[in-house]
Amino acid sequence: MKAAVLYSGGKDSSLMAVILQRLGYQVDLLTANFGVFPSWKSANNAASNLGFKHRVLKVDRTFLEETVHMILKDGFPNQGINHLHRKVLQIAAEEYPVVSDGTRRDDRVPKLDLREIQSFEDSKGVQYLSLAGWGHKTINQLSEQLFDMVKEPTSMENNSDYEIEIRYLIAQMEGEGSADKLFPPHIQSRVIGWREDEQK
Amino acid sequence: MKAAVLYSGGKDSSLMAVILQRLGYQVDLLTANFGVFPSWKSANNAASNLGFKHRVLKVDRTFLEETVHMILKDGFPNQGINHLHRKVLQIAAEEYPVVSDGTRRDDRVPKLDLREIQSFEDSKGVQYLSLAGWGHKTINQLSEQLFDMVKEPTSMENNSDYEIEIRYLIAQMEGEGSADKLFPPHIQSRVIGWREDEQK
Repeated sequence: MKAAVLYSGGKDSSLMAVILQRLGYQVDLLTANFGVFPSWKSANNAASNLGFKHRVLKVDRTFLEETVHMILKDGFPNQGINHLHRKVLQIAAEEYPVVSDGTRRDDRVPKLDLREIQSFEDSKGVQYLSLAGWGHKTINQLSEQLFDMVKEPTSMENNSDYEIEIRYLIAQMEGEGSADKLFPPHIQSRVIGWREDEQK
Repeated sequence: MKAAVLYSGGKDSSLMAVILQRLGYQVDLLTANFGVFPSWKSANNAASNLGFKHRVLKVDRTFLEETVHMILKDGFPNQGINHLHRKVLQIAAEEYPVVSDGTRRDDRVPKLDLREIQSFEDSKGVQYLSLAGWGHKTINQLSEQLFDMVKEPTSMENNSDYEIEIRYLIAQMEGEGSADKLFPPHIQSRVIGWREDEQK
């Protein structure tokens, strides 16, 4: 059976991809792009090094604009990112019977609550999977065992999270400073391939 | 790394065992027993047919008695079963750095809430994993692909859930009828081995 993983090139979504593949799913990794900035490249690179099929899920720019308006109004990104993630899940569900992401137990954004998951599955006739039963400690440990990774400050070039295109659009509309305030710089772990003793 | 799966021989805990094994954990399947009735036999059989190491986790009978008192007082098994499951998790955590069960997203009992999980992990220095990000539809589908299973009415001989020893003790204390009212008969899926095209 086919399964889509919404994919950023980070360890959470990479681990979800590995779990599904090892259970026998035909896994496609999908990275949403809104046509504003080619932020999918870093995820594509990780997917290709892991030997997974990767697709850019082209999504209408208006959803990103809606999200940016929401974030600027809130002065805080959480609600906007949740809104965007739900849209992307719905678009993926048009094509895949199983749609998943790397959301962990201790993630707060993006995250669907039980009611939203039920409504998403029922309305789209899809199965939604996440890592909600797994905490960051376990995911860190497994990722160290499975993947070669680099730790580095997030930049426009090395990250495929929604944040990148959101920042880009905010910077265009309001100047670079406003985006920095909403998304402070941070350190990320990026998957760059398998550990030597692990195979696809 | 070693990981324990609290194991009933059902599809949920069997799937958890497969996921962990395919990620590289050394998996031990544990079935709690309180010395009242040898209900671990069915789980041992499933584990052995799947090629997993199985252990009976001997737990003091007083915990079962506590649970039965709680259930008889409540007139309903949920709180008692949750209480028992937490005890068993804590005992498993004395020996294993990773302790897991087959709790699904749509399970209600036994289930730990986020606060309980955090407190369990922190107090025991353990990682707790469940299938909380996966719904019954996905688990049913995967189990059909992975396992040979039988569907049958639950009996004292074919089930290793806490229910069996709880019923046994209630029947001893209050007569068979009281146990039947609290745990109405139901149909279960029991794992009896791998599907032909799946390997350990």
